[in-house]
Amino acid sequence: MTYPAPVTNERIRVGVLGAKGRMGSEVCHAVEGAHDTELVAALDDGDALSALVDAGAQVAVDFTHPGAVLGNVEFCVRNGIAAVVGTSGFDESRFETVRGWLAEAPGAAVLVAPNFGVGAVLSMQFARQAARFFDSVEIIELHHAGKVDAPSGTAARTASLVAQARAEAGAGPVPDATTTALDGARGADVDGIHVHSVRMPGLVAHQEVVLGTDGEVLTIRHDSMNRTSFMPGVLLAVREVRSRPGLTIGLEPLLGL
Amino acid sequence: MTYPAPVTNERIRVGVLGAKGRMGSEVCHAVEGAHDTELVAALDDGDALSALVDAGAQVAVDFTHPGAVLGNVEFCVRNGIAAVVGTSGFDESRFETVRGWLAEAPGAAVLVAPNFGVGAVLSMQFARQAARFFDSVEIIELHHAGKVDAPSGTAARTASLVAQARAEAGAGPVPDATTTALDGARGADVDGIHVHSVRMPGLVAHQEVVLGTDGEVLTIRHDSMNRTSFMPGVLLAVREVRSRPGLTIGLEPLLGL
Amino acid sequence: MTYPAPVTNERIRVGVLGAKGRMGSEVCHAVEGAHDTELVAALDDGDALSALVDAGAQVAVDFTHPGAVLGNVEFCVRNGIAAVVGTSGFDESRFETVRGWLAEAPGAAVLVAPNFGVGAVLSMQFARQAARFFDSVEIIELHHAGKVDAPSGTAARTASLVAQARAEAGAGPVPDATTTALDGARGADVDGIHVHSVRMPGLVAHQEVVLGTDGEVLTIRHDSMNRTSFMPGVLLAVREVRSRPGLTIGLEPLLGL
Amino acid sequence: MTYPAPVTNERIRVGVLGAKGRMGSEVCHAVEGAHDTELVAALDDGDALSALVDAGAQVAVDFTHPGAVLGNVEFCVRNGIAAVVGTSGFDESRFETVRGWLAEAPGAAVLVAPNFGVGAVLSMQFARQAARFFDSVEIIELHHAGKVDAPSGTAARTASLVAQARAEAGAGPVPDATTTALDGARGADVDGIHVHSVRMPGLVAHQEVVLGTDGEVLTIRHDSMNRTSFMPGVLLAVREVRSRPGLTIGLEPLLGL
Repeated sequence: MTYPAPVTNERIRVGVLGAKGRMGSEVCHAVEGAHDTELVAALDDGDALSALVDAGAQVAVDFTHPGAVLGNVEFCVRNGIAAVVGTSGFDESRFETVRGWLAEAPGAAVLVAPNFGVGAVLSMQFARQAARFFDSVEIIELHHAGKVDAPSGTAARTASLVAQARAEAGAGPVPDATTTALDGARGADVDGIHVHSVRMPGLVAHQEVVLGTDGEVLTIRHDSMNRTSFMPGVLLAVREVRSRPGLTIGLEPLLGL
Repeated sequence: MTYPAPVTNERIRVGVLGAKGRMGSEVCHAVEGAHDTELVAALDDGDALSALVDAGAQVAVDFTHPGAVLGNVEFCVRNGIAAVVGTSGFDESRFETVRGWLAEAPGAAVLVAPNFGVGAVLSMQFARQAARFFDSVEIIELHHAGKVDAPSGTAARTASLVAQARAEAGAGPVPDATTTALDGARGADVDGIHVHSVRMPGLVAHQEVVLGTDGEVLTIRHDSMNRTSFMPGVLLAVREVRSRPGLTIGLEPLLGL
Repeated sequence: MTYPAPVTNERIRVGVLGAKGRMGSEVCHAVEGAHDTELVAALDDGDALSALVDAGAQVAVDFTHPGAVLGNVEFCVRNGIAAVVGTSGFDESRFETVRGWLAEAPGAAVLVAPNFGVGAVLSMQFARQAARFFDSVEIIELHHAGKVDAPSGTAARTASLVAQARAEAGAGPVPDATTTALDGARGADVDGIHVHSVRMPGLVAHQEVVLGTDGEVLTIRHDSMNRTSFMPGVLLAVREVRSRPGLTIGLEPLLGL
Repeated sequence: MTYPAPVTNERIRVGVLGAKGRMGSEVCHAVEGAHDTELVAALDDGDALSALVDAGAQVAVDFTHPGAVLGNVEFCVRNGIAAVVGTSGFDESRFETVRGWLAEAPGAAVLVAPNFGVGAVLSMQFARQAARFFDSVEIIELHHAGKVDAPSGTAARTASLVAQARAEAGAGPVPDATTTALDGARGADVDGIHVHSVRMPGLVAHQEVVLGTDGEVLTIRHDSMNRTSFMPGVLLAVREVRSRPGLTIGLEPLLGL
């Protein structure tokens, strides 16, 4: 991530919930390493949330679990701590609950994102924006051989976004002249978009969105090499969440797309 | 290009200037082939511009030459014909001249674009939008072996846009630990961005913008197979120019980016 | 194709059968354009084969149809003209027939190839050679939207070659941890190899063989832009066929692999 | 690496020299992990080589340093232990020294390889084999931003191999119509081959050899994600070295290319 040097020496005071977990420990490391953030609390199962207040945390980052996250968010909202949430399990009813708490706490801010990979989010948005200018689009996602689901969640979501953009532009089905095919050759159908899943030792997490019109092809490829690739997105959220009162869903609004 | 069927049967009446040229003849073909446009005049050197009026042209497409284009545009503005211009040679002083004519003709519309490749323009814009979220960016452009300049104009322009976006975000120079290098290994420097030019029989026109941060890489690749790839952009301009009074520069505003 | 200048001025005298067809006319053009070949006869339906003899043809190239090709080959073998055959429809029984004629004509030479694309043949051979050194391999082939079969014949043949190489090396099934998948996500199964078919306007004919082992991936990609890409292979066969008496199947032996 | 199960239960007894080093410790790990090898000695600076004999090592793997490696190899040759050497610093005079020892020890075997990456070696060999069938070739290598030299050693060596293959086939210089270029745009010149070096956070070690002829392009891409990618090559050498008496240079002969 490329940022200007901070204009003051004041660092953002950050607490991490789920600090011993796989993602949480990476967040602690990233918060300690950045020039403009400071780790003031690292809590995990059994630790009292009041430690956040005692430590003067301005932002809390939550990578815990679906059973714990709502209580954590409520605590933050009621105590004037902005919350950045990467824990899964949110649906519309949970968002409504959070909005209810926020309505009673003007200025409080919560950001919930299903994916903190800046590159992945940009890929999805670019694919969505480009979709209506091309006759067709297909998605190829490539992951390590240990992945159990196909296609990946990101690929399925990208396909849905692309399909929706095409529908809004009045586009019909993608062209496909196939009359003779082996089962599966043309991939999975996600909202009318063909999605292909490659599984291979040596790969990590990769996705290509291929868009074509007669005479030209646009390819948006994202390669994620390891989970540190999520940290720039987490730090971006930490830096920006307090300037966005209320509930923000997804990293997209912070990317200025 | 993917568009809904037109809601009426009225086609846009299009005249082409430079109709016998390499690009102009492709435009004639594309206008004839589209469901919502109609070719009503195909003029070339020596033909009277009044034929545009006689034919009832609503939009004129100009792929002529720098010595002819200004006169053509003036004629169109004064005669209520929207102009779509792909002829090269425009600079700020020429734009000022056109703006002067337009000021006297409310509702008149002129669109001048240096590049009608929708995919190329999208690539440039996506690269510009993504630039500030990555530590570094380099550009690889690959063209047929007959190309005389390196880097390509599109690559140079992409590099400038990216460099500007990085500067606006307060980013410093791209990281580069190279201490020992053969001459040229690290490419050309365009506003601080490394640009690499590959020339090869079998290739047509291709560009990759590679953006990286620790742990992830985003690649935006555009492949242009032939000059028909410019026609969707020309048709897009033909369809939209009349709804944008005044001077429009570049295809970008029509792409909703 | 990169070749040294010929050491003598004698050009190979070439006759083309099926000279008015799609491929045959390209062959005529290529034979006329090369520095070391000369087009001495261009025959099509209804022309007498004796014209080959009258013209002094040394090599005949046959792109006719399955109903005509055997008669053409027999004529060539009996008249001391080497034959290069791209016509489809050959099976083992036809090969046996040709071998019978060749047994009676010492020095006569026939080369039959299902694919004259040098790059495609190299791709297949490299994939086959590499297969036993990697834990897994998958194939992605990408073609224009008008293609009616999936996967492509080249992809299916590549998969078979790769599967055979793995079997000979004692490799088991490719690793795949998928437990939850949408239909088709993991592609078609060709001899145990996953093959994915992308169809898209703007594409021509492309194939990627991806081979992976923990920590590294090898990708062999072939892009064919148009049917002139078969001509270097046809010319290679024309130049080499006379030095290979008997029946040669495929371009592989000429590539020194 | 894909191998059949061993036909007997006897494992190859392996000693590692430089066992505490970056590569050596990976080798220890790999030897312990493979089904057909057994780690019987792990030596580093200051340990007596006699421990190899005491442990009954059949093969010794040396990743030490140029000042130590020759003594280690001599010890192995004189004690009937086959040596697999990845230590750098070998030149023709050192090879002559090793050949001298081997001449006095019939059956003794030493394999010295500058690169144990099977994929990298295959890439180089495929590029070399394909070179004479294409009009042109260029190399793009992409590495992490901390790399100090450009181009990479592998890219330079690949370029030399390709240039040599072209020269042997009588090919002239690669075609290049460039008349106007920014400094460095066309890359570095290695034996007449253009080589382009990209440096980027997020990348690890990647190389593309692009070969083109009118109408088609062949790309051989190798992605190395981490140094475990060298282990299959080391294990391959361990398994095969004893069946190749004398001095073997490079992994190539073991790959059957």
